[in-house]
Amino acid sequence: MSSQFGECFKISTFGESHGDAVGVVVDGCPGNFEISLEHIQAELARRKPGQSAISTQRKEPDEVEILSGLFEGRTLGTPIALLVWNRDARSKDYGHMKDVYRPSHADFTYQEKYGIRNWKGGGRASARETIGRVAAGAIAKQWLKAEYGVEILGFVRRVHQLETQVSGHEVTLERVESNPVRCPDAAAAAEMEDAIRAARKAGDSLGGVVEVIVRHAPAGWGEPVFDKLEAELGKAMLSIPACKGFEVGSGFAGVLMKGSEHNDAFYKDDTGTVRTRTNFSGGIQGGITNGEDIVVRAAFKPTATIIQDQDSVNEEHQEVTFKAKGRHDPCVVPRAVPICEAMAALVLMDQALRQRARRA
Amino acid sequence: MSSQFGECFKISTFGESHGDAVGVVVDGCPGNFEISLEHIQAELARRKPGQSAISTQRKEPDEVEILSGLFEGRTLGTPIALLVWNRDARSKDYGHMKDVYRPSHADFTYQEKYGIRNWKGGGRASARETIGRVAAGAIAKQWLKAEYGVEILGFVRRVHQLETQVSGHEVTLERVESNPVRCPDAAAAAEMEDAIRAARKAGDSLGGVVEVIVRHAPAGWGEPVFDKLEAELGKAMLSIPACKGFEVGSGFAGVLMKGSEHNDAFYKDDTGTVRTRTNFSGGIQGGITNGEDIVVRAAFKPTATIIQDQDSVNEEHQEVTFKAKGRHDPCVVPRAVPICEAMAALVLMDQALRQRARRA
Amino acid sequence: MSSQFGECFKISTFGESHGDAVGVVVDGCPGNFEISLEHIQAELARRKPGQSAISTQRKEPDEVEILSGLFEGRTLGTPIALLVWNRDARSKDYGHMKDVYRPSHADFTYQEKYGIRNWKGGGRASARETIGRVAAGAIAKQWLKAEYGVEILGFVRRVHQLETQVSGHEVTLERVESNPVRCPDAAAAAEMEDAIRAARKAGDSLGGVVEVIVRHAPAGWGEPVFDKLEAELGKAMLSIPACKGFEVGSGFAGVLMKGSEHNDAFYKDDTGTVRTRTNFSGGIQGGITNGEDIVVRAAFKPTATIIQDQDSVNEEHQEVTFKAKGRHDPCVVPRAVPICEAMAALVLMDQALRQRARRA
Amino acid sequence: MSSQFGECFKISTFGESHGDAVGVVVDGCPGNFEISLEHIQAELARRKPGQSAISTQRKEPDEVEILSGLFEGRTLGTPIALLVWNRDARSKDYGHMKDVYRPSHADFTYQEKYGIRNWKGGGRASARETIGRVAAGAIAKQWLKAEYGVEILGFVRRVHQLETQVSGHEVTLERVESNPVRCPDAAAAAEMEDAIRAARKAGDSLGGVVEVIVRHAPAGWGEPVFDKLEAELGKAMLSIPACKGFEVGSGFAGVLMKGSEHNDAFYKDDTGTVRTRTNFSGGIQGGITNGEDIVVRAAFKPTATIIQDQDSVNEEHQEVTFKAKGRHDPCVVPRAVPICEAMAALVLMDQALRQRARRA
Repeated sequence: MSSQFGECFKISTFGESHGDAVGVVVDGCPGNFEISLEHIQAELARRKPGQSAISTQRKEPDEVEILSGLFEGRTLGTPIALLVWNRDARSKDYGHMKDVYRPSHADFTYQEKYGIRNWKGGGRASARETIGRVAAGAIAKQWLKAEYGVEILGFVRRVHQLETQVSGHEVTLERVESNPVRCPDAAAAAEMEDAIRAARKAGDSLGGVVEVIVRHAPAGWGEPVFDKLEAELGKAMLSIPACKGFEVGSGFAGVLMKGSEHNDAFYKDDTGTVRTRTNFSGGIQGGITNGEDIVVRAAFKPTATIIQDQDSVNEEHQEVTFKAKGRHDPCVVPRAVPICEAMAALVLMDQALRQRARRA
Repeated sequence: MSSQFGECFKISTFGESHGDAVGVVVDGCPGNFEISLEHIQAELARRKPGQSAISTQRKEPDEVEILSGLFEGRTLGTPIALLVWNRDARSKDYGHMKDVYRPSHADFTYQEKYGIRNWKGGGRASARETIGRVAAGAIAKQWLKAEYGVEILGFVRRVHQLETQVSGHEVTLERVESNPVRCPDAAAAAEMEDAIRAARKAGDSLGGVVEVIVRHAPAGWGEPVFDKLEAELGKAMLSIPACKGFEVGSGFAGVLMKGSEHNDAFYKDDTGTVRTRTNFSGGIQGGITNGEDIVVRAAFKPTATIIQDQDSVNEEHQEVTFKAKGRHDPCVVPRAVPICEAMAALVLMDQALRQRARRA
Repeated sequence: MSSQFGECFKISTFGESHGDAVGVVVDGCPGNFEISLEHIQAELARRKPGQSAISTQRKEPDEVEILSGLFEGRTLGTPIALLVWNRDARSKDYGHMKDVYRPSHADFTYQEKYGIRNWKGGGRASARETIGRVAAGAIAKQWLKAEYGVEILGFVRRVHQLETQVSGHEVTLERVESNPVRCPDAAAAAEMEDAIRAARKAGDSLGGVVEVIVRHAPAGWGEPVFDKLEAELGKAMLSIPACKGFEVGSGFAGVLMKGSEHNDAFYKDDTGTVRTRTNFSGGIQGGITNGEDIVVRAAFKPTATIIQDQDSVNEEHQEVTFKAKGRHDPCVVPRAVPICEAMAALVLMDQALRQRARRA
Repeated sequence: MSSQFGECFKISTFGESHGDAVGVVVDGCPGNFEISLEHIQAELARRKPGQSAISTQRKEPDEVEILSGLFEGRTLGTPIALLVWNRDARSKDYGHMKDVYRPSHADFTYQEKYGIRNWKGGGRASARETIGRVAAGAIAKQWLKAEYGVEILGFVRRVHQLETQVSGHEVTLERVESNPVRCPDAAAAAEMEDAIRAARKAGDSLGGVVEVIVRHAPAGWGEPVFDKLEAELGKAMLSIPACKGFEVGSGFAGVLMKGSEHNDAFYKDDTGTVRTRTNFSGGIQGGITNGEDIVVRAAFKPTATIIQDQDSVNEEHQEVTFKAKGRHDPCVVPRAVPICEAMAALVLMDQALRQRARRA
C-alpha cells in the first residue's frame, strides 16, 4: 500500500502538509520494551524545518504525542500511534499554487492519479510526510540498539560540487551534528554551507548525497531474492522525496573495477569471527548481512522549489508562468540525514524480526 | 516474503540452481487475456546461458512448461504456474565448493541465515533464480503492450570503462539485439565485446550498467509515499543478483545541477497533451508517472566468479585458498538486460492494476 | 498484521480502551469521493455505550475527528486518519483488576503473549477497539452505496433463548432502529429487552446472534480459493470481540438438507437477469457473489463481564476469587449490529476494488 | 491474494482440476528442518478420491514431487515447490457442462468474475485445488509436532441427521482412521456410512460437520484484533469448498448459555500451570491461545453434484435442464477431515512464527 511500510514491523503514515496533523501508526513492535520519548522528540528536532539559517523558515515545534501502545513507559505490543499537529500551515502562502502545476513537483501527477489534490501545499508529497517515518524510525533505532547494539549513522557526503573524502570509520554522531550541514568534515562543511547560502540568495537550490553506515548488524539479516536487504534499503531511500539514486557498497563506482579487485576476501580475525579484508559488498552478500558495516548512499536532486519564474501549465492545460514565492529550502540534504537513518532503521528492525521468525 | 513480488500482480518464484527445476506462480493476472507462449520462450532465450561466446557455457534449453491458469490460450484469471527443468546441473563441478565460502558470493551469508545451504551451486542466489522473473515478466510485457501500448526496452549503457553516449530515443529492440553485448551502439558494442573476451581470457570479470526505458506509460501510475514508482523500480532492480546501484532520470548526476537547471518545465504539445521540455525526472514526479519516458539505470558489479585463486575461509572458519574452476560468466550485464526489463514489467503491471482499483 | 485489515482498502486501527484515544487510518480509498461526516458520526452513535438502559453506562461522546485525507469534503486518495478521544476512562474503576486475570477475558493471554498488559481495562481486547472499524466501515458503506447501490443491514436475530422468525426481506433500517435491541420484530424485541434487563439485575449476561444482509452486490465480487467472500466475511465477524461462530446462507442448518434440496436452481427473471429460486448459498458460490442477497450470521457469547464472584488466578498464578464491580454490558449483541455491518462493508469495498483491478 | 495464504509461513497454490497439474509453493519454512516425504504422501492419500466405496471413483495416484527447497532431506529455508500431476482428468466426461451453469457450483460466478472459465471441470473451484493445502499442511504438521509437540486431529462429528456424542478427549488418529467415514465412534460411523450409501444410490448427496482439535499449543499464539486465532481458523475453514459455517468452543450453542455458565474459571493444576475448569472458550481468549485444547467445527453443505435433473440456465442465459452424469462424491465430509487439519496446521505454524518474531 502506498502509505504502509514493512512486513513484521509495519508502519502506516498519514497526513497532508497543510492538513490538521501528520502521524504514524507502528504495528508489530515487541511488547515490554522501554521507549524513550525524549529520543523520538530529539530525532524529530533533527528533521524539523527552521533549524538553521540554511533550511526553510517554516516554524513548527513538531511536538509528538503518543496516543496508544505504551503503558508506564513500555510498549504493550499493540499499535503505537504518534501524532504531530500542523501549527504553521499558513495556507495563504499557497494561493498562487491553486491553478498552476509547479515544475518537478507532484501537483500534476497527483491530479492525474486521483482526480483531485490539496493545492494548499505539497500534501502527501511534502517532506512533512516524513515526520511519521522519523518518529517510527526512532523507535526502531532504540530497539536495534538495545537488542543488538546496532548503530545507524547518516551524514552528508556531497552537496552539489563539494564532496568530503572522510572515511566512514571516522564518522561519529557528534561530528555529524557539529555543523548545520551534517557533514562530519568541518572544512568541507563550511564550504557546503557557503554554497547553500549562495544558492538561497540566488533563489536557487542544490542537491547532494547522504551516506548511511550501519554498524554491528549481525550476519544473517535480510532475505534472498526479492527482499534482499539492499533492495529493501533501496526502496526505503528512493521513497524519500527528491531521492533519485541509491547505491550500496561500491555502487556505481564498483563497475569500474574487475572481479579480481572487487571480491571481498574472507579471513578470520583475532576473535575467531569471519570478516572480509575489503567491504565493496557494503556489508551485504546475496541480500543478507555478512557482519561488516552496511554502507549505502542516496542521491537527492536539487529542491524543486526555487524563487524564480518558470514555464508551466495550469489545470486547464494552458501554458502559464509560475511565479514562486514564500519560504523555500535551498538544500534539503542536511535534513534528509535523519530521514535516511530512520528508513534504514525501519528496514533493519523489520528484517531482524523476520529473521527471528525463521530461526529457533 | 523473500520469494514473492508484487501486490495486485503477484509472483512467487521457486527453485535452486542445482535442484530439479525452477519456476514461478503468477497470481492476479486478469482473465480472458490471450498469451503468447512463443514470446515467453523468446524472452527466456534472451536470458539463458550459452547464447554467445561471451557468456557462460552452461547448456540449458530453458524450455518453459505452463501447468495451470490457461485455457485455450487465454488466461483464466487463476494462478499461472510456469516451470523450467534443470538439465545441465553437473553437480560434479561443484565438489570444490563444499567446504569453502566463495568470496563475494552468498555461501557464507546463507549458512549464517538458515544454518544450511545447498553447496552444489548458488542455490537461490544463482542467476538461474531469475528465470521465473523473466517468464512472469513476459506475461506482464504482453499485457502492458496490449492494454496500454507500453514498451519496455533495456540495453547495456556501460561495460567497465566503456560507455555508449547513445540517446535513449534512438534505441530499438532490433539494434539492442544486433550484437551479443546488447549495446545499441555498434562501435561501442564491439569494444565492449573485446573487453569481455579479454577478461574471460584472464579468468577475470567485468561489471556494467543497464539502462531501461519505458515508453507510453500513461500519467497517474505509481503510488505516493513508500511505494513510489522509482522506489518499486529500485527495489526490483536491486533484487537482481549483482546489482549494486540504481538511479532514475538524472540520478547521481542530477546532484551536479542546480534546481533552476534540473526542473522540468511543463508545456502543452500539439495534441494538447501536457509534456515536459526536459526529462530529468525520468518520467516520475512524486512517485507517479507524468507521461514522459521512464528512464532508469542499474549498476552491476563484476561477477564474483573468477578463475583465480582467492583467500577465503571454510565452514570451520579456517583460512583456506579457494581455487575456482568450471564455467564462468565473465560479464553478466548483457544477460541482465532481459531480467531488468522483466522486473520493470512486473512493477508496471502491478501499478497499472493498482491504479485500476483506484479510479472508477 | 494484528491491527490491519484489507488488501486494496486497508485499515489500521490503534488505541487501548483506557489510553488517550482510539482511531483508524484508512488507506486505499479512491480519490475525489464526497464523504458525509454526519453519517460516520451517526454510525458511531449506534455503536457507542450508554445508548439505552440495556447497555453499559460508560459515557463517551465518541466524537470523531478527521485528521487527514479529506479536502473540501472530498477524499484525496491519501490515508484518512480518524480519531476519537477517550473521555470517561475512569481508571480508578479498574484497580481490582490489577492482579487478577478475569475469567474468559484476554488478561491472561495478553500477558502470556506480550509479557505485559494494560491492566486498567481491556486494552485492545475491549469492544472500544471497534470504534475504528465502525468509522472506517461508514466510509465503505457510503462508497458502496454511491458506486453500486449496495445496502448493508444488520439486526439481532436471537438473544439467548429468543429468536425472531422475521424474513430477511422484511427488514428495514427503520424497523431495526425502532427499538434498543435492534430486532426488527417488535414483539420479539420486547421479550429480548425483558430478558436483558433480567440478566442485568442478576449481574449476569446474555449472548445472541446478529444477521447481516447485503443487498444489490453485483455478481463477480469475491475471490476463489483462500479469499473466498464467505471466508473474508467469516474472518471479519470472528475478529469482533465475543464472536464464537459464523455461518453463510444455510449455514449449520444446511447440513440437515440433502443436495437435491439445497441446490439453488437458476432461472432468468423478467429483466433477463440470472437469478436463483432459493438462496441457500447466501449469495455466494465458489467464493464469489452471484447477485443474490448475501446473508451471514454471527454468534456472540454472553459477555464475560458479570457482577458475580468467580474463581480465578492472579499474576503469581495463585488461586483467588475475582470480585467484579463497576459498569457492565449485560448483552453486547445490539451494539454488535453496527460493528458487524461495518466489517461487512470493509470486506465488500475491499473486494469491489480488487475486482476493479481484475477487469478492464 | 486469492491463491495465497499466510503471512510468515505463506503458501501459493495453483492448478485447475482438469489442467496439467496442481501444486503449491511454500515460502517461509525455517531452514535445516528434516521433512518426511512419506508423511506428506500419506496425508495426500487421506484426501485423495477413490479411497473407499463412499467417495468419488475418480482414480488419481496423487503422487507428490518436490521440486525445490530441500537438500539431503532437510529444508533450505527457500521456497518448497510441491507438484501433483493430473492423471485421470477425463475431459470427455465434462462435455455436458460446456454450456450450462451447474446449480450451486461456481460456473456462473467464475464466468461473471473473469469473463472466462475452464468448463471442463470445476477448475480452481474443484476440491482438487485442496491438494496443495494438504501437502503444505503436512509440512506444517511435522514442524509443529517437532518444535512444540502440537497435535492436530480432525474427525467427522456429524453426517446429515447423524451426530456422534463422542468426547474430544477420546479421539485418536487410530480411531478416526478405523473407518471410511472418519468418525471415531464406530456405531455412529456405521450408520453414517449407510446413510451415505443410500444417498449415493439415490443420486443425492449429504453434508456434515468436521471437528478439529489441536492439542498442546502453547499459550500466547494468535493475534489480537483482526487476526485473532479464531478469525484465522474461521477464514481457513470457510475457504474450503462447500464450507458454510464455522464455530469455536461453545460456538452457536454458547448463545444458549448465560455468562455465569459460560465463563471458564481459571485454576492452577498440579504442575503449577494455569488451566481453565471448562473450555467453552475453545482454547482461545481474546484471539490468543490460553494453553487449553483448541476446538473448532466446520459445517459442510451437501455436495452440489447430484445425479438428478435440475433447472438451470446456459451461457446465453436461457433456461435449460441440467442433466448430471459421471462420477460424484455423495458426501465430501470424510475427505474434508485431512483438509481441515491441514488448514489448521497452516494457521498455527504461521502464528507460531509470528509469535517468534514478537518475543525475544
